[in-house]
Amino acid sequence: MCMSDLGSIRFGAAVKFRYRNTEMSGTFIGVENGIVTIKLSNGYNAGFLPDSIEIIEQSAAKAERKKERTRKVEGARVSILSTGGTIASRVDYSTGAVKPSEDIDWLLESAAFNKNGSRLTAEFRIIENILSENMKPSNWVAISRTIKSDLDAGRSVVVLHGTDTMTYTASAMAFMFRSLSHPVVFTGSQRSSDRPSSDSFLNVEGAISASSSSIGEVAIAMHSSSSDDCISAMRAVRTRKMHSTRRDAFKSIEEGPLATYCNGRLEVNGNHRQLSEESDLDDRMDTSVMMTYFYPGLSASDFESMSSGKKAVVIMGTGLGHIADDLLKTIRTLSRDGTEFLMTTQCIYGRVNPFIYSTGRNLKDAGVTYLGDMLSEVAYVKAMHVLGSYPREQFREIMTANMRGEIRERLRL
Amino acid sequence: MCMSDLGSIRFGAAVKFRYRNTEMSGTFIGVENGIVTIKLSNGYNAGFLPDSIEIIEQSAAKAERKKERTRKVEGARVSILSTGGTIASRVDYSTGAVKPSEDIDWLLESAAFNKNGSRLTAEFRIIENILSENMKPSNWVAISRTIKSDLDAGRSVVVLHGTDTMTYTASAMAFMFRSLSHPVVFTGSQRSSDRPSSDSFLNVEGAISASSSSIGEVAIAMHSSSSDDCISAMRAVRTRKMHSTRRDAFKSIEEGPLATYCNGRLEVNGNHRQLSEESDLDDRMDTSVMMTYFYPGLSASDFESMSSGKKAVVIMGTGLGHIADDLLKTIRTLSRDGTEFLMTTQCIYGRVNPFIYSTGRNLKDAGVTYLGDMLSEVAYVKAMHVLGSYPREQFREIMTANMRGEIRERLRL
Repeated sequence: MCMSDLGSIRFGAAVKFRYRNTEMSGTFIGVENGIVTIKLSNGYNAGFLPDSIEIIEQSAAKAERKKERTRKVEGARVSILSTGGTIASRVDYSTGAVKPSEDIDWLLESAAFNKNGSRLTAEFRIIENILSENMKPSNWVAISRTIKSDLDAGRSVVVLHGTDTMTYTASAMAFMFRSLSHPVVFTGSQRSSDRPSSDSFLNVEGAISASSSSIGEVAIAMHSSSSDDCISAMRAVRTRKMHSTRRDAFKSIEEGPLATYCNGRLEVNGNHRQLSEESDLDDRMDTSVMMTYFYPGLSASDFESMSSGKKAVVIMGTGLGHIADDLLKTIRTLSRDGTEFLMTTQCIYGRVNPFIYSTGRNLKDAGVTYLGDMLSEVAYVKAMHVLGSYPREQFREIMTANMRGEIRERLRL
Repeated sequence: MCMSDLGSIRFGAAVKFRYRNTEMSGTFIGVENGIVTIKLSNGYNAGFLPDSIEIIEQSAAKAERKKERTRKVEGARVSILSTGGTIASRVDYSTGAVKPSEDIDWLLESAAFNKNGSRLTAEFRIIENILSENMKPSNWVAISRTIKSDLDAGRSVVVLHGTDTMTYTASAMAFMFRSLSHPVVFTGSQRSSDRPSSDSFLNVEGAISASSSSIGEVAIAMHSSSSDDCISAMRAVRTRKMHSTRRDAFKSIEEGPLATYCNGRLEVNGNHRQLSEESDLDDRMDTSVMMTYFYPGLSASDFESMSSGKKAVVIMGTGLGHIADDLLKTIRTLSRDGTEFLMTTQCIYGRVNPFIYSTGRNLKDAGVTYLGDMLSEVAYVKAMHVLGSYPREQFREIMTANMRGEIRERLRL
């Protein structure tokens, strides 16, 4: 096929084509340096010389989808809100690097509709264009207000977000929304939509499917395994990015997913909170919180200078929640002045417990609150919410109680 | 059996006993609150009423072991050096807490010899009694010197250490010893030797077995799974404590173990460095290094105050090694003044890479050195070693080169 014909096919279009006498189908990605890239139905991108392939069908498939879309509107509506990140990025082929892009029509064209023909109307808006390492608590507040107005307008919400800090933002939404009228599902992409083996398409598809479920929670929907076949919708406050590059980087720590989306079908596990009539947002966050990772050799003076002036400090301790004895004095002093110290474990898996070793008991006596199996990142976000929204004297009680599934039992104070 | 007879049996003694007409065997733990505790051969502790059991054999089993020990000395000798931690602790039954104990004869009696009868002579010394959260780089130096003199005396070395910071200490040994004449194997315990399902016995047994191998490395030997059957001897610089309580808390990150010990037999995988004629120790460490865990909301002023004055800062970034753009200025300023910034990932799994996103390229341009798949904790220890032992102008080159298997490829600087 000649280049000019190929050039007229839009990114994200569904195509049927012939290659070496075999009929194949996939998603058209683009033509770059004389190579046509098509994402095959097995999830991987393949490169072809333009002469070697013949496009058989293209607009027909699109028209069919469009018809489906109009015909099947039956009320359920979803807002897809893009905040930026890899899922809203493209490869810059001159440098090989990934750059933000506002051209994400492919989302609506190729992913907003279930393979079976969808019953959803999707509305797409770019609300930010931020690589997620640049997200701040102030962005969380802005995002929560946009979500709130969409929920109030009767729509479920899919948030496209960079994967790096997705747990933080999604957890912030989980705490800020006391109740949800529709699901709020975060998704993103480990590899941009025009890369070989991009996870964008299926992630969006799975997230949209989860957003039309009965899950009354903030979820993160990402690949279940490294294969491009299933999506896990996980409780945001139990989720952590555990790999820098894999498609299945997100793990629900010591807890199964809320739902799994495979082959166009969503299976809900039933372990989720229920939807409410109204969405109740409390977006007050107190950002005077910090996280500190304990390590051998951390000096008392460094620990003191980074902790002082903060209302709460999340300590990522070793094992069951330990730090060196010589930091105790700092904790005692700053505790008396009103700083709250919260203990989580840098092991990630397993819970902290102050009652096993003398170190834990001493830390507890000095005023440290142990947070069970709460993830460090989640504890940090929760502390901002609790400081912002509740009377100070209730801080420890609320931090150690389960609010959104972030902790699995009431802790001994 | 009456209490006074039971009281004469020593902790850790091998016993055969009769219970409900069945003959059983195990390790005698003790009598507490009227209950006899015996660790059964399946690895779990069972409690018995004193009247319900009859001890059939005890000293005989011990005597046999002793004979074995004398008979089979054939040259290989191992030093077991205790530095403290859970493995050197006992439960205080009045509070339920775990306390350090110097009574660790059980180690020699029940664990220092392979089930098949050993060819080793074990020598046991207490060199410290520190819960590992209190270990400091100065302790690492002291431990390395003790190890060096034992190696020079022709002994392999097993180090008993608290699990909380075992990766740090073992990694310090890995870097400080340029070559090893005998293996150095760290082990510890997630549950003290008198607790139900303690891992102490098998861990020590596996560590001693690994210490008599051809592995020219510093290894960490701990449970392979939650069953009490196999021990993995893992490359220290690839190992991380990934669970606060499980017996198989230690994982070799994205790398198989160096050796596995099951049913009294050690299987060496052959991926280890070779032993040398001499042990070459370079124990110079520069402790002007810190670790910092990036999170959304970390302010530039906090980041600057914790980083300034340090020779090196390990940043645990998100994903491929990212932090917020507003911290770039601090890095540029402090870099110019000589602070080295090193990037690792808080994902733990996967590598950092500055060439994918603009954030990474900007950080690299500002002077940040990306460390591939090196674990954050290992990077921290390596930086102290490299600053202490090599000319400053070689710092980046050596940090990004593989010294001890801590990184899997030469990195682009």
